[in-house]
Amino acid sequence: MPILNKDMTLCISLSAQPSNLGTRFHNYLYEELGLNYIYKAFAPANLADAIAGVRGLGIRGCAVSMPYKEDVIALIDDMDASASAIDSVNTIVNDDGHLTAYNTDYSAVQRLLAEHEVPSAYSVIVRGSGGMAKAVAAALHDAGFARGTIVARNESTGRALAALYGYAWAADIGALTADLIVNVTPVGMAGGAESDTVSFPAAAIEAARMVVDVVASPAETPLILGARALDKPVITGAEVVALQAEEQFFLYTGIRPTPDQVRRAAAFSRLP
Amino acid sequence: MPILNKDMTLCISLSAQPSNLGTRFHNYLYEELGLNYIYKAFAPANLADAIAGVRGLGIRGCAVSMPYKEDVIALIDDMDASASAIDSVNTIVNDDGHLTAYNTDYSAVQRLLAEHEVPSAYSVIVRGSGGMAKAVAAALHDAGFARGTIVARNESTGRALAALYGYAWAADIGALTADLIVNVTPVGMAGGAESDTVSFPAAAIEAARMVVDVVASPAETPLILGARALDKPVITGAEVVALQAEEQFFLYTGIRPTPDQVRRAAAFSRLP
Repeated sequence: MPILNKDMTLCISLSAQPSNLGTRFHNYLYEELGLNYIYKAFAPANLADAIAGVRGLGIRGCAVSMPYKEDVIALIDDMDASASAIDSVNTIVNDDGHLTAYNTDYSAVQRLLAEHEVPSAYSVIVRGSGGMAKAVAAALHDAGFARGTIVARNESTGRALAALYGYAWAADIGALTADLIVNVTPVGMAGGAESDTVSFPAAAIEAARMVVDVVASPAETPLILGARALDKPVITGAEVVALQAEEQFFLYTGIRPTPDQVRRAAAFSRLP
Repeated sequence: MPILNKDMTLCISLSAQPSNLGTRFHNYLYEELGLNYIYKAFAPANLADAIAGVRGLGIRGCAVSMPYKEDVIALIDDMDASASAIDSVNTIVNDDGHLTAYNTDYSAVQRLLAEHEVPSAYSVIVRGSGGMAKAVAAALHDAGFARGTIVARNESTGRALAALYGYAWAADIGALTADLIVNVTPVGMAGGAESDTVSFPAAAIEAARMVVDVVASPAETPLILGARALDKPVITGAEVVALQAEEQFFLYTGIRPTPDQVRRAAAFSRLP
């Protein structure tokens, strides 16, 4: 049986719809590396109270997911450059009550674009304009992707994000196509209202040369399945989550797991 | 390896000097009974923030130990009769954000006095005037112990507690003796400033017919060891903790473990 003890360091996540990915990824590595830590996902009743709890209970680290990535900024003490560049937080580190916010999605997306050798000459469509979409658009822009369109029903956030990086904005996907298409909406997410919906029209998938979905649960979203059926190269949300989680793990524990450990933790986190 | 998951219900304790007893007791029973719960002790950085965290993170149950048993009253929504009778809280139950406070020490002490058949005609000395001392004095009084002395350096809390139940008050133990002596101070607690100190003078132990210590870590405090050396019957803090923890367990989970399960969980919680 698991022998929990009072001295364990607790790390958590805050999300309206938690998945098991972070809980399984981090606990796998704690066990593997013999660290006296535990990790658990929470769907907070109230964000301000939850962050007060991070301080009051001495919770070491806190992942932040939708819809809290921007609202949490008012509740922390310091912003790392990774978070302040895009006004979006996905990671909080608590040093003796002092909370510093980071964004590990940005660096994870940049690393994946490089590892998959996606040419920056590709035209891009990004669906979404929330916290994660900001990280994706910033990562694309900073990696040299100059021709982009933000597709988002929310005109004010969509236009603002597009303007930030010299991209176009469209309210609907319509007949738009691009070499690289990226879903950064909850469409296709298990348990969501549109879990069975493909986040891009068939014509956009057919025209794409690389298909990216940041939805990680399931990794095989309707979009990814549609892209695989057409033999398109893909980057799944599971890959994004694993890389950004590795960076969070390092921020919380000061320990950098090996690539093999990360692979096994990510595989474990996706087991049914 | 322990497979933690996002849906686990978290219960915690808040104490300035947490022991491993609660963490091990509750987690043992969760495992034994197949409940998807975890329990961990915390030493809060700030009590109000910690209680905000109980609400914000949806933490189901919260044990409250020294020195928070009275300060926490201002932070909860409702007082059960067990807590309001003595203005001291050791248990909080969170029902969808509504926090109700209980005191399971009171009933645990009463049950132990009955089980050990301690005659209510015994004279009593209670050392201490904090939250737990209130529970002990109330339990003694309500069980018919009419002749008591509260020994406490703090004159205002000591006199107030004595007056409440018609007991005497003394600042120091001096040459006082009684049939039943009860330590309700941190003297003898592992890790404390007086861990090696016997909480009663040798003469008081020699004169006693029953010796009780509420210090549970270690169960074999200098007082208990001294009493055993003189073949005095004892009630240890471990017994008090196990009984009150059983009641907490029921309040948090709605499940009443069997006496054998409680015995095994208590034994497990005291393993080195």
